[in-house]
Amino acid sequence: MSDVKKAVLAYSGGLDTSVILKWLQDTYQCEVVTFTADLGQGEELEPARQKALKFGITPDNIFIDDLREEFVRDFVFPMFRCNTVYEGEYLLGTSIARPLIAKRQIEIARATGADAVSHGATGKGNDQVRFELGYYALMPGVKVIAPWREWDLLSREKLLAYAEKHGIPIEMKHKQGGSPYSMDANLLHISFEGRHLENPAAEAEESMWRWTVSPEAAPDAAEYVDLEFERGDLVAINGTRLQAHELLAKLNELGGKHGIGRLDLVENRYVGMKSRGCYETPGGTILLRAHRAIESVTLDREVAHLKDDLMPRYASLIYNGYWWSPERRALQALIDNTQESVNGWVRLKLYKGNVIVTGRDSKTDSLFDPTIATFEDDQGAYNQKDAHGFIRLNALRMRIAANAKTKRS
Amino acid sequence: MSDVKKAVLAYSGGLDTSVILKWLQDTYQCEVVTFTADLGQGEELEPARQKALKFGITPDNIFIDDLREEFVRDFVFPMFRCNTVYEGEYLLGTSIARPLIAKRQIEIARATGADAVSHGATGKGNDQVRFELGYYALMPGVKVIAPWREWDLLSREKLLAYAEKHGIPIEMKHKQGGSPYSMDANLLHISFEGRHLENPAAEAEESMWRWTVSPEAAPDAAEYVDLEFERGDLVAINGTRLQAHELLAKLNELGGKHGIGRLDLVENRYVGMKSRGCYETPGGTILLRAHRAIESVTLDREVAHLKDDLMPRYASLIYNGYWWSPERRALQALIDNTQESVNGWVRLKLYKGNVIVTGRDSKTDSLFDPTIATFEDDQGAYNQKDAHGFIRLNALRMRIAANAKTKRS
Amino acid sequence: MSDVKKAVLAYSGGLDTSVILKWLQDTYQCEVVTFTADLGQGEELEPARQKALKFGITPDNIFIDDLREEFVRDFVFPMFRCNTVYEGEYLLGTSIARPLIAKRQIEIARATGADAVSHGATGKGNDQVRFELGYYALMPGVKVIAPWREWDLLSREKLLAYAEKHGIPIEMKHKQGGSPYSMDANLLHISFEGRHLENPAAEAEESMWRWTVSPEAAPDAAEYVDLEFERGDLVAINGTRLQAHELLAKLNELGGKHGIGRLDLVENRYVGMKSRGCYETPGGTILLRAHRAIESVTLDREVAHLKDDLMPRYASLIYNGYWWSPERRALQALIDNTQESVNGWVRLKLYKGNVIVTGRDSKTDSLFDPTIATFEDDQGAYNQKDAHGFIRLNALRMRIAANAKTKRS
Amino acid sequence: MSDVKKAVLAYSGGLDTSVILKWLQDTYQCEVVTFTADLGQGEELEPARQKALKFGITPDNIFIDDLREEFVRDFVFPMFRCNTVYEGEYLLGTSIARPLIAKRQIEIARATGADAVSHGATGKGNDQVRFELGYYALMPGVKVIAPWREWDLLSREKLLAYAEKHGIPIEMKHKQGGSPYSMDANLLHISFEGRHLENPAAEAEESMWRWTVSPEAAPDAAEYVDLEFERGDLVAINGTRLQAHELLAKLNELGGKHGIGRLDLVENRYVGMKSRGCYETPGGTILLRAHRAIESVTLDREVAHLKDDLMPRYASLIYNGYWWSPERRALQALIDNTQESVNGWVRLKLYKGNVIVTGRDSKTDSLFDPTIATFEDDQGAYNQKDAHGFIRLNALRMRIAANAKTKRS
Repeated sequence: MSDVKKAVLAYSGGLDTSVILKWLQDTYQCEVVTFTADLGQGEELEPARQKALKFGITPDNIFIDDLREEFVRDFVFPMFRCNTVYEGEYLLGTSIARPLIAKRQIEIARATGADAVSHGATGKGNDQVRFELGYYALMPGVKVIAPWREWDLLSREKLLAYAEKHGIPIEMKHKQGGSPYSMDANLLHISFEGRHLENPAAEAEESMWRWTVSPEAAPDAAEYVDLEFERGDLVAINGTRLQAHELLAKLNELGGKHGIGRLDLVENRYVGMKSRGCYETPGGTILLRAHRAIESVTLDREVAHLKDDLMPRYASLIYNGYWWSPERRALQALIDNTQESVNGWVRLKLYKGNVIVTGRDSKTDSLFDPTIATFEDDQGAYNQKDAHGFIRLNALRMRIAANAKTKRS
Repeated sequence: MSDVKKAVLAYSGGLDTSVILKWLQDTYQCEVVTFTADLGQGEELEPARQKALKFGITPDNIFIDDLREEFVRDFVFPMFRCNTVYEGEYLLGTSIARPLIAKRQIEIARATGADAVSHGATGKGNDQVRFELGYYALMPGVKVIAPWREWDLLSREKLLAYAEKHGIPIEMKHKQGGSPYSMDANLLHISFEGRHLENPAAEAEESMWRWTVSPEAAPDAAEYVDLEFERGDLVAINGTRLQAHELLAKLNELGGKHGIGRLDLVENRYVGMKSRGCYETPGGTILLRAHRAIESVTLDREVAHLKDDLMPRYASLIYNGYWWSPERRALQALIDNTQESVNGWVRLKLYKGNVIVTGRDSKTDSLFDPTIATFEDDQGAYNQKDAHGFIRLNALRMRIAANAKTKRS
Repeated sequence: MSDVKKAVLAYSGGLDTSVILKWLQDTYQCEVVTFTADLGQGEELEPARQKALKFGITPDNIFIDDLREEFVRDFVFPMFRCNTVYEGEYLLGTSIARPLIAKRQIEIARATGADAVSHGATGKGNDQVRFELGYYALMPGVKVIAPWREWDLLSREKLLAYAEKHGIPIEMKHKQGGSPYSMDANLLHISFEGRHLENPAAEAEESMWRWTVSPEAAPDAAEYVDLEFERGDLVAINGTRLQAHELLAKLNELGGKHGIGRLDLVENRYVGMKSRGCYETPGGTILLRAHRAIESVTLDREVAHLKDDLMPRYASLIYNGYWWSPERRALQALIDNTQESVNGWVRLKLYKGNVIVTGRDSKTDSLFDPTIATFEDDQGAYNQKDAHGFIRLNALRMRIAANAKTKRS
Repeated sequence: MSDVKKAVLAYSGGLDTSVILKWLQDTYQCEVVTFTADLGQGEELEPARQKALKFGITPDNIFIDDLREEFVRDFVFPMFRCNTVYEGEYLLGTSIARPLIAKRQIEIARATGADAVSHGATGKGNDQVRFELGYYALMPGVKVIAPWREWDLLSREKLLAYAEKHGIPIEMKHKQGGSPYSMDANLLHISFEGRHLENPAAEAEESMWRWTVSPEAAPDAAEYVDLEFERGDLVAINGTRLQAHELLAKLNELGGKHGIGRLDLVENRYVGMKSRGCYETPGGTILLRAHRAIESVTLDREVAHLKDDLMPRYASLIYNGYWWSPERRALQALIDNTQESVNGWVRLKLYKGNVIVTGRDSKTDSLFDPTIATFEDDQGAYNQKDAHGFIRLNALRMRIAANAKTKRS
């Protein structure tokens, strides 16, 4: 019937991927391997194991992995080295998780001898692209099954009917219409799309937000926090060194408490349409600000500008799903090269949605020299008279042009 | 003695430029024309006239111009069409005013037959470059006098002594040590540099800020505001159409009230050193956010990305003083071309330092189509199956590469 | 059966598009409008009319248009304003013709009330993309029929069998196996792909080339030619002003005679694979060299560099088929803005494959000033001492960094 | 008198730097260290030693170094990895030698305890910038003496008078007016500037060229040559592995013989003016073509495009003298990362000024797959139907925009 023998499914344990699991077994008549990842989304994973067992998946075909440290250390932090935002605002919380899931899925496919992989992303979104570009880059001959593009369960009603028919347990929330939003969460963010948000003119409901209090509800007293960086990566908060994922969790806690990191955006999807998304990225919002600040005292001007020039391209690569591409790796080589000197600390004030940089310095790598920048006196490295020649030569081409014009007219 | 006959001085009426005025008369033995511009800095200009008269400047050599509308319409708004920020954060409040002052100074030089121009910018800063590149581009043979690079009054003490000696009135604040900050203000912002800020590790004093209340001191109730855009420029606030400079003044008022637009930054000067600056840009901070939001529904994805890619370069041109360069004009041609469709409105919520976009739409130019972005059903322009081919071909080069590697190993 | 009522076919009159014509009539049961364009490919067009009539196409459904002037004036010349080459070498001869064909096809569709368009490009190449992106951009609801992606005539044998079966005349060359190459020609170039070229290690056969003699066979005497430019476009050759397409034809004649403009390339297709192509672009090769040369004396340095930085992106847009996109238009606004001053003449020496610039100048717009560039003396605009300050300040950031490093170690 | 104790002079042994040597001794009353480098310029270096001794330089203060291998291996080849050309044509032969000279000069300064360095570049050219940016980056406190910006010997007559007065031997050629050109040579090129070339409208004299025969005088028979690359660098010619500098010398011989590598250019200097230069870069011209060709089969499309986009910036950095800057190093990290797979061979045909690529392949890293690019059949990795979805989604944003426009009008 089908030429698929064994498929590794990215399985959350939720209704949608449970339906997919069953549908794969029925439609492709193939063995299914489930893979459930802990990326810090804040859900229990063991229920996914129990559900998988109920579908007849054998224990050795059930993979549940804690990928939090790898996620933050090898994906989130490298991305933040470039102060990466998509379209000026989006911190790429969903985008950056997909390549790790794809990589692990392929590792499992190799380990279990599977010839196919499958995911629960729809045919209209970016995630299908991000998953599948990862699959193909890492295992070019793999068969990819994207049920949402293949089946006819394209409305929630049909999906529920299928679940009911096949005895897949439907939680109360789904029966009541489910969450009005399509959500995705990991240590970097939680996102909301769909339904009520589909009118870009209408304000998001306060009840939608999950990780952050509103600025209004945040504490009336500001909180200061010190972040320490080494080679561009956060290594300590308020003097405490922690693992990468613990650091990000701690920032999330701080940001969430102070109403930091909400974003309401209309963005351009890679597949061609605009869509409205709301995001909570409390820790990432703090981290971005802090990273820019530590770079401001430790990074050379032209290096910083080079990074700024390339950032939108790098962000698009990640947004579009090209993490595993050779061009992303080449850009990363440049970015990482620049972070050698990005060592030091940043002090931030968190207050009702605001992340305010109040101080920054580096014992080992500061390029800030107050004796040069000061307005008074004129000693040492800087001679004010040098500015005369600097300006004259920088103006030369424009003077020549203006002169030529004058002569002719 | 000197080969300068007549010099147009950018004259604020303050102590520094008064000393310069006197010094020009003494050192260059030249006639001086004073030019004082109203850029919305919020100071009385008539005192400058009286002071100039006291230095023996003849009435027809005193120019006091209200440039507020030209400033916002022809400089600030064109710059905001590109969502322009320097080094990720600075809104270029000082930078964007300099080319207008330079232009007007040269116009006055032509009108009065002057052969020289002079300004009060120091030899360590960016402003000398911005002024002089403008002068040279617009009048290539003009003589430029930059007293701070020429004289020996390089400490405040020497300057005060010179003033005293020449009977230049010294206000009480200067006798008491003066403001600890070097400040610059216009309709777009007020900036602070120097003294207490020269330690980038230390927090700025709350007493420094002038235009904005602190987020803590801002009203406890949020305020909603509607902005309307035409061809990328703000044209109305809450339904009221106003002149450009009135609109910006109104935004400043709103932003200032809600604690919006403070920035504390270490930036890279064009002349080569890092310096710490603090800025209040209440209206500009609101405007930037709103402009991005209206573009998010009206601008094509690739056009938006092209602008994002070029923005840092455009920002650097303005920061470095190249407004009057041909490359800035070429970039402006591109930017302006993209703004044809940027028409519509944005709703913002202002609250204690936060500018929150809550809605945006365009009756005439929205590219947002909920029937395409929606998760359910599959009609019309978008066929989910198309995504299969889209992904397959975008992955092709990576599949070929991975295949080739596999075959060989 | 089919929902297509009337389709406009890009019809060359050759075997392939004749088979497509018949196949459209049979498969879609639709009315067919044929459109044959003269882009200077050097073929008789009237035979296409006769053939179309034989297929039962009514005379008012047969369009044969001379588009040569529009092609060169509105497509080729604007592209050359940016010194456009794809991947460092390819002059985009095929790419630049497609948007014009698409545009005219859509015009005819509107004029004849057709609801569909069709072309003869294969499913593996770039041309399908270029045609169809044009169609969709200009008439978003149009139905696109791409027979090569739909039918099963995917080998030459099957195609010939179909032709024979349907009484489509097969010329002798096809019976003998046809040309070994897939060719495309217009006033800008002729291209060769396929068969013998599919081994990138093997040299192209001398007999393949059509428009140029080999350098070896070119005249032993060099020929000088003067080109005159206005606003970046060629307007005269050796003092004779001609229409745009006549100018390019004349350059082709000159280049072809002197063995100029052959190119043998492995390029990256938009659809994801590498392919080997050979091109003859005699006139374009001369024009590119000359345009760079006239810019070298009339264009500001930073403007020239800005164009150089953007050129690869602009070239990719054209190569990939995005001529009708808003981002191409935005870039064109920038490019055209820069060409105001590109007026003057260039003298070239043509000799056995070489295009050698021997002189260039502009009476009205030269920015070359020998009194400044000269090695001796030091007057006027340039003071050698200015270089001291210029270098000192440009070095400042690196000196500060090196100093900081030294102090710490 | 002077605060300079010991200065390392970049000393060619020619008239100009001999005058500088004497002038340094007289004006600065300092000890002088001479440094003469063999960069393959094709001149005897021992005479420089004899001359230095005559000026009273002690033997241990005379440095004569063969830097040819380091020059080609660590400067020329890394630069060619990016297919680097300045302003579309110039191969940067002079620019790339300066950073090595500066580096070695600073090494000698450190070794000999010198506190100053000096060079013979004029105040109007690029070389002063390139030398001095290198000095400052590598030894920030070094004193730089640029005699041409300091002394009053600004005409050839004055220089000759000074030489005569101080007993500096003047060769016959100088007495007769010397070469009409200012020249610079190393293994990569020889350059010509000045005098007869200062009229950009006039053709360069045939007698000027030194390293190449004219295409007319080149052999009537073409010559084929095979180049082998490893990680982007040339490693063998016609199967013979040689050191880097030997390879370039061999290419120079081949190119010179076949009239390859002449260039006549108006370029934009960093100090602000346009200048006309003529260059002979026989080996480099061959190498550039070959490197592009080997990349065409081994480099991923997007990586190649990324490099193309960044190349002009990288070229400007080198042209302007920023080899030792952190931004050049960051770009180099990216470039070098991309060259891992650039392994294989290229076959070239050299004929009367032409460098014609006739074949290229890679046993280990070819990404060219004829089974995918072929026009016939449709198996394996590529399914022609995929192109449909690819085009539809790439067109989507333009279709939406066109639809929206239509609906409104």
